[in-house]
Amino acid sequence: MCELLAMSANVPTDICFSFSGLMQRGGNTGPHKDGWGITFYEGKGCRNFKDPLPSADSPIAKLVTEYPIKSELVICHIRQANSGAICLENTHPFIRPISGKNWTYAHNGQLADFKNKLPINNNFPIGTTDSEHAYCWLLDQLEAKQQGKGGSLCLRNLAPFIGQLCSEINKLGVFNLLLSDGDYLFSYCANNLHYITRRAPFGKASLIDAEMVVDFQQETTEKDVVTVIATQPLTDDENWHKYKPGQWVVFNGGEVVLQGQEQVN
Amino acid sequence: MCELLAMSANVPTDICFSFSGLMQRGGNTGPHKDGWGITFYEGKGCRNFKDPLPSADSPIAKLVTEYPIKSELVICHIRQANSGAICLENTHPFIRPISGKNWTYAHNGQLADFKNKLPINNNFPIGTTDSEHAYCWLLDQLEAKQQGKGGSLCLRNLAPFIGQLCSEINKLGVFNLLLSDGDYLFSYCANNLHYITRRAPFGKASLIDAEMVVDFQQETTEKDVVTVIATQPLTDDENWHKYKPGQWVVFNGGEVVLQGQEQVN
Repeated sequence: MCELLAMSANVPTDICFSFSGLMQRGGNTGPHKDGWGITFYEGKGCRNFKDPLPSADSPIAKLVTEYPIKSELVICHIRQANSGAICLENTHPFIRPISGKNWTYAHNGQLADFKNKLPINNNFPIGTTDSEHAYCWLLDQLEAKQQGKGGSLCLRNLAPFIGQLCSEINKLGVFNLLLSDGDYLFSYCANNLHYITRRAPFGKASLIDAEMVVDFQQETTEKDVVTVIATQPLTDDENWHKYKPGQWVVFNGGEVVLQGQEQVN
Repeated sequence: MCELLAMSANVPTDICFSFSGLMQRGGNTGPHKDGWGITFYEGKGCRNFKDPLPSADSPIAKLVTEYPIKSELVICHIRQANSGAICLENTHPFIRPISGKNWTYAHNGQLADFKNKLPINNNFPIGTTDSEHAYCWLLDQLEAKQQGKGGSLCLRNLAPFIGQLCSEINKLGVFNLLLSDGDYLFSYCANNLHYITRRAPFGKASLIDAEMVVDFQQETTEKDVVTVIATQPLTDDENWHKYKPGQWVVFNGGEVVLQGQEQVN
């Protein structure tokens, strides 16, 4: 299994605090030692750092922790390999330019018999993971649905359909998903996903995985809204919302803008 | 105008020396202060660092200089903006997953009336540069040519056709190009491009843009072959090969594997 982390905010916010906790799980407090990656959106562009090394030892992870890149949308993944070798092309998140936007995808879970059950026609994977294969299949389905409508894919409008596709994929195993086009952040829970929305009045929070406390009041203004999504809660003194299996939620600017519930097998 | 840099080698090689010279041109010895980016291939995966800050001041450029990432294929670009705002989505190189490979593209020059002359059907740009627009047009043409052949694009096989397309694009202005699928490195010269192939017996070389000398004999084995391509020579004590206008060259493992000459208007 892997761990997912994402942030949606209404102002550019750094993710140093949450990332500091998560990266400890990459070979230190957790077993996710088979690489890590993080995507920061800046406007329509994005920065992408990844490393097949354990995040707890990676010089690039150290740079990301120390250099406060501010962003309104971040997706991060640390990997414990179960499908596909440990190498850069198998390291999440996977970014693809779609309809004039960067779409970023990260998956937690595993899928059985995915090559037979999810046949690919158009969008071909680069690496050998079940995760990237499922991403390509998902894009094939979205493109097929939009044929004749100019072929332009809008993540927000397609969210209910993406929810159905997630449930379809989830039948092959476990499929917790983060997907973003840089504006909207789509999240789907198969079995393990939590989120917390922080807004005024801000308080303090303590990381579970590192000796670190942050007082968000010092770091924020009254209007800030910041949602963090993670496989497991990262702090032990806040109330994280636990997703139901089959639940999907779309965030924009830190707020929930759309959600739904799929049947889970 | 911008500056291009690329490397093709038969063993994983770090590009710290050449990059140290080039990054000085990004706001220090040169005027290319509007961002920079670099792609390192590792297997079928690639790392991509970019920054809209001048490379001479960028903490990420400092990381790249100090952390010797070894690669057999690297593409780098420093930007002096002439089309499109200074922002992350307008920063080269541009990477797109195509037919199961990461294709990386960097352009030096500028193109007039590109939106009318290079109509886009399928591959949509994310930013607003002439460069990314031309990349999308080029991909549209390659896909159209391969229709009915399974749609799989092979950079090496398509190289002569890519050369023709470059000359077509070059009619709109200046189009020096670097393009790679991670195995092959395609280069096209409109007006300014140079390469040098270093192999045994290796000697010393001195950077033009920084006080730095390297003795390649200390860094290499007898079998190493390393080609560096740059807009302008980076060292002042080696013989760089100057491309002819309209000339294109494909490299693999540091060696020239294919080349051709197009008519230039």
